[in-house]
Parts: sequence; structure tokens; C-alpha cells
Amino acid sequence: MKHTTIIALLSGPDQPGLVSMVSSWIFSRGSNIHHADQHKDTEANIFFQRVEWRPSGDIKEESTAFKEFASQELGMEVKVALSTDLPKIALLVSKIDHCFHDTILRFRAGEMAGQIACVISNHKSLQKAAEAYGLPFIYLPIDTNNRADSEEEQLKVIQSYGCELVAMARYMQILSDDFLARLALPVINIHHSFLPAFAGGKPYHQAHSRGVKLIGATAHYATADLDEGPIIHQDVTRINHRNSVEDLVRKGRDLEKSVFAQAIRLHLDNRILVYNNKTVVFD
Amino acid sequence: MKHTTIIALLSGPDQPGLVSMVSSWIFSRGSNIHHADQHKDTEANIFFQRVEWRPSGDIKEESTAFKEFASQELGMEVKVALSTDLPKIALLVSKIDHCFHDTILRFRAGEMAGQIACVISNHKSLQKAAEAYGLPFIYLPIDTNNRADSEEEQLKVIQSYGCELVAMARYMQILSDDFLARLALPVINIHHSFLPAFAGGKPYHQAHSRGVKLIGATAHYATADLDEGPIIHQDVTRINHRNSVEDLVRKGRDLEKSVFAQAIRLHLDNRILVYNNKTVVFD
Amino acid sequence: MKHTTIIALLSGPDQPGLVSMVSSWIFSRGSNIHHADQHKDTEANIFFQRVEWRPSGDIKEESTAFKEFASQELGMEVKVALSTDLPKIALLVSKIDHCFHDTILRFRAGEMAGQIACVISNHKSLQKAAEAYGLPFIYLPIDTNNRADSEEEQLKVIQSYGCELVAMARYMQILSDDFLARLALPVINIHHSFLPAFAGGKPYHQAHSRGVKLIGATAHYATADLDEGPIIHQDVTRINHRNSVEDLVRKGRDLEKSVFAQAIRLHLDNRILVYNNKTVVFD
Amino acid sequence: MKHTTIIALLSGPDQPGLVSMVSSWIFSRGSNIHHADQHKDTEANIFFQRVEWRPSGDIKEESTAFKEFASQELGMEVKVALSTDLPKIALLVSKIDHCFHDTILRFRAGEMAGQIACVISNHKSLQKAAEAYGLPFIYLPIDTNNRADSEEEQLKVIQSYGCELVAMARYMQILSDDFLARLALPVINIHHSFLPAFAGGKPYHQAHSRGVKLIGATAHYATADLDEGPIIHQDVTRINHRNSVEDLVRKGRDLEKSVFAQAIRLHLDNRILVYNNKTVVFD
Repeated sequence: MKHTTIIALLSGPDQPGLVSMVSSWIFSRGSNIHHADQHKDTEANIFFQRVEWRPSGDIKEESTAFKEFASQELGMEVKVALSTDLPKIALLVSKIDHCFHDTILRFRAGEMAGQIACVISNHKSLQKAAEAYGLPFIYLPIDTNNRADSEEEQLKVIQSYGCELVAMARYMQILSDDFLARLALPVINIHHSFLPAFAGGKPYHQAHSRGVKLIGATAHYATADLDEGPIIHQDVTRINHRNSVEDLVRKGRDLEKSVFAQAIRLHLDNRILVYNNKTVVFD
Repeated sequence: MKHTTIIALLSGPDQPGLVSMVSSWIFSRGSNIHHADQHKDTEANIFFQRVEWRPSGDIKEESTAFKEFASQELGMEVKVALSTDLPKIALLVSKIDHCFHDTILRFRAGEMAGQIACVISNHKSLQKAAEAYGLPFIYLPIDTNNRADSEEEQLKVIQSYGCELVAMARYMQILSDDFLARLALPVINIHHSFLPAFAGGKPYHQAHSRGVKLIGATAHYATADLDEGPIIHQDVTRINHRNSVEDLVRKGRDLEKSVFAQAIRLHLDNRILVYNNKTVVFD
Repeated sequence: MKHTTIIALLSGPDQPGLVSMVSSWIFSRGSNIHHADQHKDTEANIFFQRVEWRPSGDIKEESTAFKEFASQELGMEVKVALSTDLPKIALLVSKIDHCFHDTILRFRAGEMAGQIACVISNHKSLQKAAEAYGLPFIYLPIDTNNRADSEEEQLKVIQSYGCELVAMARYMQILSDDFLARLALPVINIHHSFLPAFAGGKPYHQAHSRGVKLIGATAHYATADLDEGPIIHQDVTRINHRNSVEDLVRKGRDLEKSVFAQAIRLHLDNRILVYNNKTVVFD
Repeated sequence: MKHTTIIALLSGPDQPGLVSMVSSWIFSRGSNIHHADQHKDTEANIFFQRVEWRPSGDIKEESTAFKEFASQELGMEVKVALSTDLPKIALLVSKIDHCFHDTILRFRAGEMAGQIACVISNHKSLQKAAEAYGLPFIYLPIDTNNRADSEEEQLKVIQSYGCELVAMARYMQILSDDFLARLALPVINIHHSFLPAFAGGKPYHQAHSRGVKLIGATAHYATADLDEGPIIHQDVTRINHRNSVEDLVRKGRDLEKSVFAQAIRLHLDNRILVYNNKTVVFD
């Protein structure tokens, strides 16, 4: 049987002895480190650490105490989670359904340390499918006149379900700066190109037109600058002159599914730290 | 023992019966097709074919006759080559030497259907190494004042050696429109990013700064528009937050070597047709 | 709009003029070749061709006439299909469901030139899921005492649905020689290793124990010799010392899904020819 | 400017507090950890760590003191190295030269934290090339009658040059148990298949005959059991039915070069620990 562990993600100004102070704190409580990984950006002078340990005593007390220790004594930004946590996720979809099905099936297969709380869409196309999976489906149509109202509604839904993550499964709407700021939650988007190549719309058409020999997919945190957010994961596949745009779309679906899933998994496993519009991924 | 074959590369407006007419011409002479591959761009209505056959009679006569047939009767653009041809190549280098060594060693290992005729450089760094390989080394320094003269000289050297291909093995100078136009030979360049991402200078720095999770290399035909020419071959490799720019440079070297070599091989094997700034690669 | 095409797969003893005779036959009827690919095994002296063309007249008449021509005049084995054909497939499953879901979703997304006619299983686990997809589910338990009877029943079901292909989506039973012989249909299996490494049971445990740095998946045609049939497609993914057997199982699922799907697609697109326990794949 | 660091590789029975004790020891001396990575095999109850730090005082004294601390106080097996160490390597070759050239060029390019001390061969083919690189070349012919004597001689040469690593760059002789035992140095071999598939001789012929769709290369530590040693690194590349055995050999060369180089680099960077015929690779 697997024991519940505490996972801490730390970042902050580098200083001598951080690894020692963190590990000694854990050891001094009789607890046992299972994994620890750290990174320094020597130019930016920032220290990053992911440490996972099995607590000796009360897990809630120990995780709270660690949080205090890391933030107050070490001056680090810190996030603490338990390996048994199952944070709630809002899935944003439009009509395209491959990432929708793939993501939900992975959660149902137990691959993901979280739970899909609701599906939000600007179309009704996937309502039946979502409900067949037993998931609440919230239809929030968006057009140029109601964008602000619709986002207001989205915000309420996401908050009412207690979501801690938003995942855009090929959601075909841009999230406004205001929405992202007020949401104040991580949002993972999947873009169907190897960014920064072919940002913007119709990347498979762009790729076909440019005659590249590889197509890609990029999962990134959504920011106010479209397709400019911190990249979490990328992958590519080979194409050739025989492939039409439709072939690229089909081949790309497999990339999008696996890259999106991998990014969500890494996030839920508390393996990602963001700084300077980049990610540290402790995989 | 391998028999000498004729290889024809055809392209032109599509019309019914092209495959039949080409293969019947060959069959009617008692010759035998070894490989044939074709492609249609249905939007552009262009037909492409690579056909390789063992001639029954005199190889020179048959290849000349085919050329006439394909251009005059079929109205196609056609290039005809023999499998025993060893076209001459001019290698352009600066100081960076990994593509230089790798390319020369591949030719010496018999991997390539061609011969390096000369090494041209704007630095003396690789003179000894080139001469140790038994290759003529031509030093042609370039600065802002002598660019036109230097290119004039390059042109003469390339022509005097009878080169049919120019390969830029991390040559750190831009070729002028005028030079390319007067050269009138294919020029293969290796760019150290997965184009169109990170065109221009210092692509590894750009990649590091953007925080991508893959770096790449792209071999393309050089055109007047820098880094915008038809892409021949691309590949990528995975990187992570631990990798410094120096790591990217090191990892990238392996990509550059293999992508550059693969592009040269495909070209020398007469497998590439160019149209609309794209390539058809019959591999 | 896409026009219906005829696709022919030919194989037989090589002889001069085959490409010419096939293309001339098509041209002489005023029909137009869209794609043609051929291969020679020069050692075995066998010629293989896949040719796809748009017929000028009645498609049924032309495909029948071609079949006669190719078999009687050219002495080739020939399979002729239409691009609009949607052959029926029997999906064999046990309890493991990732290939089951993935395959069905790909057919529903229109990725595959065929239709799933029925799901056959030796367990009831996936009954509800199959029926939710609107697919007939046939429960045929198998144990050591009833194997022959159960296979007899399987055979009847597969035939009653008019299936032309059987796809084993992680079906955990071995098909007997007798069953395969009487079935006389292609059977595609997905094995969770890069065969021939780790044939037999528990390949992820074998891989973990041997300490390999890559795991793979292999789709092959099932034969009487378990895991020894002609390989259609393979892929691998990278693992490291941190990965437990459970991690390999999870990572492997993605490989199994995509490799299995690709093999089914290639088969349904009539791109595979089998000889000498190997495949020619015209992709 | 890069500072010299101490690198320690530790392994031994797991016990609580190891991470803390190691990092505290380093911190208590005023030294600063740059990288630290650890792994536990929970089944085997073994702890592995690679830790790299910048010492505060005398580097020799500190590395010796750490070695004592780790072995005596923590009961771990420990290897300590400096980032400036350049261990000597003996390169074993026969006639095949691609790994020979590639490896030497990588050392000359400064990619590797070591130095090639000598080239030993059972053929004279590469003598001139080795000497052109400025490397001592030792010709030690081997046949069935003189194997023991020849290995005796090899041993002397390797020891006389003070080598700490032996790298078999497609050396076509098997090393005897006795030789390996007396040598008592790590030996890295490159095998031209994705082991455990196609162990033994002529793996490309085996791969061609079996009809696999991927070929691979495997770098491993040589042991008395041929092709059964702990795997360090593997990679694969895609092939198809068009590829002859000669094509596999050519494509495989690129794999062999990069996989072999990567294994040597990981070893020289002190990133590999061996146990239970497997490797932990801290990359």
C-alpha cells in the first residue's frame, strides 16, 4: 500500500544551505524524504525545489508547519499538497472532441491525480457526451455582444465548483486579460503547433503552406498574450509532401491529446514551477 | 554487383496517362523499372515523378533519348542522372567544424553519391584539417568592404572546380541575391532551429529564452530570403530546464550533423523536387 | 468533393514491364492514376504494387475487369477495393479498455475507412461501455474446458456480422491455429513491447527487470506462433530508472493506442502486403 | 568563469535522513550544493545519490573528508570526483571506423570530460588515422591461438596509460571473463540493436529478416555475459520495407555514434550508478 506523502514546491532567491535546511527540517521530525529535485537558475539567482516526503506525525499539521517554515524562515514561495489530493478541474471545450474524450478517459482510468468537476462549452455539441460520462455540462454561448457577461458566468461556474485548474481542451475562444486576472487560477491550453512557430489561427494550414517536415503541439499556461505563455510540454511528428492539411489535422490530434494530457498530469503531480515566462518541470 | 541505373526527376502540369507514358517508353526499349514514385499536387495541378530504371542498351543514348521524350513529348521539366554519377560539391565553412568533419567523413565512408571538390572559407581555422583530408582549401576573407569581390572570387572557384552543388556547413555569411542568381546552382544550408521558429541569428539563445522543450535543426535550399528557402529535412531533440545555452549548442550539433547530411544525401540521390517554396522528397 | 477511387494491391513474380502494363491498362480506359507505389524484393524476386485511380466508367465493372486482367494476364495475386468501402471489423477485448475506447472513438471521428460491427469479449466488464457506443456486445467466456466451443461461437459471430477484419484490442486470449485457419481473415494484434524483445507475457515487467531505456509497442498480424506474426507498425518511448512497472504500463498505453490505430488504418486503407512473414507498407 | 566542483556518487542501504545528513555536511563546511539528485529503489531498499557542490576550502581536503564521511559515517559506497578531472580512456577498435572518428572528434571538440590516452586495435586499418589525430596506436592482433597473450598485452597497455575507462568503438572481439575481472575498470560497449532484441552477431541482418519497423543501438557496460550487461543508453530509428541490410547499416551508424557518445559522456560526468545489472542515470 502506498503511504500518503507531502509534496512541496519551493522557489525563491538562492542562498547557501537551502537543500540542507529543508531536508534537515524534514529529518528532524522523523519524516522520510521519498524524492527531492532542485534547480538553480544561476543567472536569475533563483532556487527551485520539489520535495516529497512521508510525514511521521499528523499530515495536516506537518504540511502546515512546513509551509510556515519555508515561507517565514527560508523566505521562499511555497505550495504544499498531499499525494492524495484530487483537485477539481474545469474542462473548457467547443465542438472539437478528441482532447475532450481523451482527457476524460484518462481521469476515469485513474491516470490523473485530480477530478473533472464540470465541462463548460460555448456550444451544445458535447452536452450529451459529457452527461454520458456523468459530468455536469454548462452551456455558455459567447458572441461579440455578450463576451463580458459570458466570462462573468464562466467565472461563477468555475468558482462554484471549487476548481483549482482550468484546462482548455481545444476551446476555440480567447480568454480576456480581465477574466484571467480575476480567475487567478492556472489555465492550461493546448496549441496545435510547435510554438513559437505558427502561433495564431489555423496552424496546420500555416505548416502545410510553409512546407515543414514536422508538425507539433504545445501545452502552455494561458496568459493575456495569446500563445505566448510559459511552455509546459511539446512534441512533434513527421509529415511529408503527400500529407494534405486534413492529414496534418488527423496526425496532429494524436499529438494534441498526448501533449495536453502530459501537461495536465505534470501540473496535478505538482511538478511545475513558473518564472520569467518559462517552466521548471521536475519530471 | 549493382547495375548502373538511370534516374529521372520529372515535374510539370498534370495530365492523364503520364505514369503510363513514362513507364511504357521505358518498357518499349526493353528496359526495366527498379523504383518509381510519383506525387500530384491536386490544388496546383502539378505532377512529380522520380523513376529509376536499368537501361537495356547504351546508357548515355537512353538517358538523352528519355530527356528529349519527357521534355518534348510530355512537356515536363526533367533532370536525368546516372546512379554512378559523382557530382562535385563545394563545402562552405567558417570556424565551426562539426558539420565540416561529419560531412567529409560521410563522403569518405562512401555514404554519399558525390565528391567534395573543395573547401571554401572566410577563415583559416580549418585549413590544416581540410588539407589533412586531402581537400583543396580556398581562403576568401569577407568583410563589409570586399563582399562583392569576395563573392566574385567564390563564384570563380566554384565554377573552376565544376561544382554542381554548394553545401553551407555552418557557413556564417549570408549569400547575396546577386551571387545566388549568378551561381545558378542548388545551395543547401543548415539552420540551427526548427524553422520557421527562431529564424535569424542566435537561435539557441532564442530557444533558451523562450523556454521551448524541443530544439531542432532545418536543412533548406538557400534563397535570397534568409532562412525562408524550401525546407528539405528537419529534426528535433528534447531539452529541459537544466540545459544551458551551451547544452543546447552541444545537443544541437548532433541534430545539425545528421539533418545536414540527410539533406545532402537526398539531393545527391536525386530525390528532391522544388516548387512553390516547398519540396517533394521521394525518400 | 472527393471522387471514388479504385485501389488495387498486387503481388507476384517480378517480370519486366509490370508498371507499364498496369498503368497502360488504366490509361487505355481513360482512367486517371492518383497514386502508385511499387516495391521489388530483388532477392525473393517478388513485385508489389499499390495503385489507386479514378475510373472513367462504371466503377464496379472497371474494378472487376482490372482484377481479371491482373490475375489472368499478369499472373499476380490481386485485391481490389473501392475508396468508399467500409469493411466490418470485429473488436476482441477482455477487461483492459484503453485500446477499446481509443479505437471506437477513432472510428466515430471518421478517421478509419471501416466500421466496427461488434465487440466480442471473454468478460462482461466492457458490456455497458460498448452498448453506450451503440455497438453489439457478445459475451463469450473462455476457460480451459470450453475453449473449442467458445472459439466455434466466436467464429459464428464474426461471420454472422460479415466481418472482414478482426482487431485484438488487448484481448488476453491466444487464438488457436485451428481458429485462425478456419477464420481465414486478417487478425491484427497489439503487443506491448518492441518485438522481438519481450515476447510472451508481462512484457513491462520484463522490460523493467532488464533495465531497458525504451519501451515499445508492436502491431502485427496474428499467426499460430504467438508474437511471431508479420510486424505492421512499431513505436517506442523513453523511460528511466525512476519509472516503476506501473509507470511503464501507463506510458505504454499511449504507445499501444497509437500503434494499434495506425496498423488498423493502414490495413483499412489497403496499404499492407504480407510475404515471408514480413510486411510491405505503402504509406 | 566556472568554478571547480566536487561530484559524489553514493549508493547503499536506504535509511532515514540520508539527504539531510549529506547536505548538512556540505553546508556545515560553508560549501554550496549546485545540483543534487537522488533515487530510491524501494523494493531493493537501496538509496542512490549524485551531489555536486562548490567547496569552500581546499578541494582535495574536502573531497577526501567527504569520502570518509560517506563511507564511514553513512556506510555508503562512494565515488568522489572533481569537475576538472580528465580521466584517461582506452579506445578499442577493429576496422569499422565511424564510432572511432566520431568519438575522437567529440573529445577534440571539448564535449567530453576526459581524454583519449590510446587506441588499441586487432587490425592496422586505423593506425594512420589514429596517428593523424596524434594518438598512440597499439596493434595487438588476436587469433584463436594467442587470445590469452594478447589480452595480457592489452591489460598492460591499458594500465601503463593509466586508463580509468575502456570504450569499445565497434571492437569486434569478445573480452574474456578473466580479462574483465583482472582489468577491474568499467568497459562501455556499443551494440547495434535495441537489446535485448537481436543480441549476438549480425543484428542488422536479424532485424531485416524479422521485418521490424525500427532499428536501434544500445550502449552498455561489458560483462562476461555478452550483450547482457547493464544498459546505459538506447535509441532507435525508423526503417521500412525499402531498406536493404546496407541501408540499415548506414542508418544504424548514426545511432551507434550518438548512443555511444552519450553513454561515454554520462559516464565521464559521473552520472551512472550500477546495481542489479541495471543503471541509475542521473541526467
